[in-house]
Amino acid sequence: MMEMSNELNERAIGVFDSGVGGLTVLAELQKYLPNESFLYLGDTARVPYGSRSPETIIRYSKRVAGHLVRKKIKALVIACNTATTYAYEELRKSCKPFNIEVFGVIEPGAKSALAKTRNNHIAVLGTEGTIKGKKYNEILHRLSAQIQIQEKACPLFVPLIEEGWHHTEVAEIIAEKYLHDIQEVDTVILGCTHYPLLKRLLQKIRPNMTFIDSAESTARFIRASLTEKNLLSTTSEAKTSYLVTDNLERFERVGYYFLNHPPHPLELIDIQDSDELA
Amino acid sequence: MMEMSNELNERAIGVFDSGVGGLTVLAELQKYLPNESFLYLGDTARVPYGSRSPETIIRYSKRVAGHLVRKKIKALVIACNTATTYAYEELRKSCKPFNIEVFGVIEPGAKSALAKTRNNHIAVLGTEGTIKGKKYNEILHRLSAQIQIQEKACPLFVPLIEEGWHHTEVAEIIAEKYLHDIQEVDTVILGCTHYPLLKRLLQKIRPNMTFIDSAESTARFIRASLTEKNLLSTTSEAKTSYLVTDNLERFERVGYYFLNHPPHPLELIDIQDSDELA
Repeated sequence: MMEMSNELNERAIGVFDSGVGGLTVLAELQKYLPNESFLYLGDTARVPYGSRSPETIIRYSKRVAGHLVRKKIKALVIACNTATTYAYEELRKSCKPFNIEVFGVIEPGAKSALAKTRNNHIAVLGTEGTIKGKKYNEILHRLSAQIQIQEKACPLFVPLIEEGWHHTEVAEIIAEKYLHDIQEVDTVILGCTHYPLLKRLLQKIRPNMTFIDSAESTARFIRASLTEKNLLSTTSEAKTSYLVTDNLERFERVGYYFLNHPPHPLELIDIQDSDELA
Repeated sequence: MMEMSNELNERAIGVFDSGVGGLTVLAELQKYLPNESFLYLGDTARVPYGSRSPETIIRYSKRVAGHLVRKKIKALVIACNTATTYAYEELRKSCKPFNIEVFGVIEPGAKSALAKTRNNHIAVLGTEGTIKGKKYNEILHRLSAQIQIQEKACPLFVPLIEEGWHHTEVAEIIAEKYLHDIQEVDTVILGCTHYPLLKRLLQKIRPNMTFIDSAESTARFIRASLTEKNLLSTTSEAKTSYLVTDNLERFERVGYYFLNHPPHPLELIDIQDSDELA
């Protein structure tokens, strides 16, 4: 079997995030692409990206991508909304010479939201960086002329989830506060890969709104694209491994909330300034 | 005047933290040492240190120290409990060849708490890293044989303060949750340089306890030490400047909560792997 398959098809798909958040995307990818191997990289020595400047996010993303490209991946998934906002175009350019497809999480989420909304009022929740970058805004307006958009940065959601408090009363009060002005919309994009863990709670607070988790739409989009490009694995020897740049123990502990199993095998790696892609 | 003074005495005191938290220490230093100049460095490209591994905290601290040492400082204040926990000894060693005194925030805070407690029950609140490092524990036990210590990591306090929510009901609920088991102690060490902003709220929840803000005791300790070593400035041309490694705008905005004035003059600098002190 192996001899028949194309070497390129059997390469892993690289998936990266600043930390654990991208695991929501990884889980959907595993569901939609059960024959594929994944190499997940959480840049935990530099997490979070969500409150950093565009320049720093681009620099960190290019270092991570450089590391993954050297591992011979066939595609790169930016499983982080903030990194997609600022580094998607740069990474596409940098990965082109290596023939590596680059996918972000924003366009698929935006398209799902447009397919759902009935009143053309959409809200986007995200980190400070994602909201300030206005990428959802730009894409939604490009795809639909009459859409109205409300955006809200929710910086406490990530630490709340990482503390494991996303089912508590505290989470409910904080969510009520952030959603206070979100009233007229019928569709809300969870514009941060951590937020799916709050979906049930948010749904309870705003039962009339649809919450869009971009992980699933991203996975569907990637499956379609790899299929079209004939890049799917032809064997079923799928495996996933995890790399982090710091604090294995914390990644294991918090990663469990996201996967319901430990992220194994897990390896600590070092990423240097010099890993940056040209 | 300037001609009379010793060049070394007129050098600035370097103060560093991963971000804004150390500004509580800086403010006390300015109060206790009004003739001194300060160079504050917030390593905002790598903030927060509190959830990172010891190795990474040491590495980042040594890069920051390397940068400040090249700026010709006369003393270095580690205005961060997590960096003091893991990097104090290393930085002392690395700074010795440059004749630069290194100060941390833990020992002064521990001594203040020991001076206050009547029932010999002390609690320490801090980041994950600080609590796990058990430095307060070690120092308190070294200084007093019969002390009992309770430790509690409070990872949501920092993002809560940085969101500007430290006076809200949310802060109160979160604080109640963290303080739930803190009952028998009479003295609580605020083992993170952000936490003084929560002092009034914590005091309200536990009116019978004394909350120790290590910023003030650190400033008093440093004044005594510089006086003893004849290192005080002899002019009154004090000035403070601020350096950050990322996101000027955010540092200005959040820094305001800490200083009640904008942190100016403020400059964006780049710190590289190669800045690391030997």
